[in-house]
Amino acid sequence: MADPLAQLIQHLGKLPGIGERTATRLAFFILRGPTSYAHDLANALIEVKQRLRQCSQCCQLTEQDPCSICNDAKRDRKTILVVALPQDLLAIERTGGYRGTYHVLHGLLSPLDGIGPDELKIDALLARLKDDDAVKEIILATSPNVEGDATALYLSRLLKPLGYTVSRIASGVPIGGELEYADSVTLNRAIEGRHEV
Amino acid sequence: MADPLAQLIQHLGKLPGIGERTATRLAFFILRGPTSYAHDLANALIEVKQRLRQCSQCCQLTEQDPCSICNDAKRDRKTILVVALPQDLLAIERTGGYRGTYHVLHGLLSPLDGIGPDELKIDALLARLKDDDAVKEIILATSPNVEGDATALYLSRLLKPLGYTVSRIASGVPIGGELEYADSVTLNRAIEGRHEV
Repeated sequence: MADPLAQLIQHLGKLPGIGERTATRLAFFILRGPTSYAHDLANALIEVKQRLRQCSQCCQLTEQDPCSICNDAKRDRKTILVVALPQDLLAIERTGGYRGTYHVLHGLLSPLDGIGPDELKIDALLARLKDDDAVKEIILATSPNVEGDATALYLSRLLKPLGYTVSRIASGVPIGGELEYADSVTLNRAIEGRHEV
Repeated sequence: MADPLAQLIQHLGKLPGIGERTATRLAFFILRGPTSYAHDLANALIEVKQRLRQCSQCCQLTEQDPCSICNDAKRDRKTILVVALPQDLLAIERTGGYRGTYHVLHGLLSPLDGIGPDELKIDALLARLKDDDAVKEIILATSPNVEGDATALYLSRLLKPLGYTVSRIASGVPIGGELEYADSVTLNRAIEGRHEV
């Protein structure tokens, strides 16, 4: 088979969750489709690497610095919600329910992988807190797994002595989920996290 | 969220089987990865549209015309294997078991979708047969479904009167498959296609 096609299949096959079969299917879809689509996708790939940088305040990925959230006067500056990755921020923004600001750590503590506090954007968070007296509460919204919990614990020990209200997002049985099918760790968390009604 | 990222997610989301969640995951993978990967993938997308054309003999997608298979003196010119799409050819080439040449129809007869014989590369097949006295057998390797069977029937009626041996690939229970789980159409085909042992 011709070389450019093999190349495209090979590069698509490097994407997570995409094996050779799916890569082949995608490549033929692109080949059959309009040239404009292939060009649009190619441009988007290049632009995303060229134009995005980290916001100097919240460290999210942005074209303009500070980012549109940090720059938005309507956002509530009293609260900073801390997430591990830019896609977590995106997921929370999609809900439309949170009106405060963010801080993106760009990872979670994971000593076994050599990721300590210095590898995360914790210094940037502290520098930002020093400059901004408006902040009252910090919500730790890392995932409820080993790394996420460890990172939240580390941050809470760091931030509480500075006088901030530090909170952790709730974990438990997901809305719409069936108790019957929830794993035991989730069930334990849900029971531990019970609140009076 | 920044615009280039939204664009990339949108374009990735147009690929078949890739929804917004997967597109987001892929976009962040690309964003985190080396710039060289994004550029390689972008180049592959553009090259595949620029450099591939149809082989004037077998109609497969190729950079050079005639394609490497039609141009290969070691391939057996007595047999032409007819497939619907370039990816079918690719699948058969991967097995390494077939040493003849190919013909790609670029579709299957489907009157309801307005696809008649003129929309397929049947004229090209006939023209090629007229020029080449070496061909003895034509193997119809369209998929065993309504369109594939109809196309095979149409071609066999067209080619048999011209004196060629026309054969159809076998269909039945897949190797490694369980009889118990085979659908009834496949089972019927397997019984119809029985051969003495």
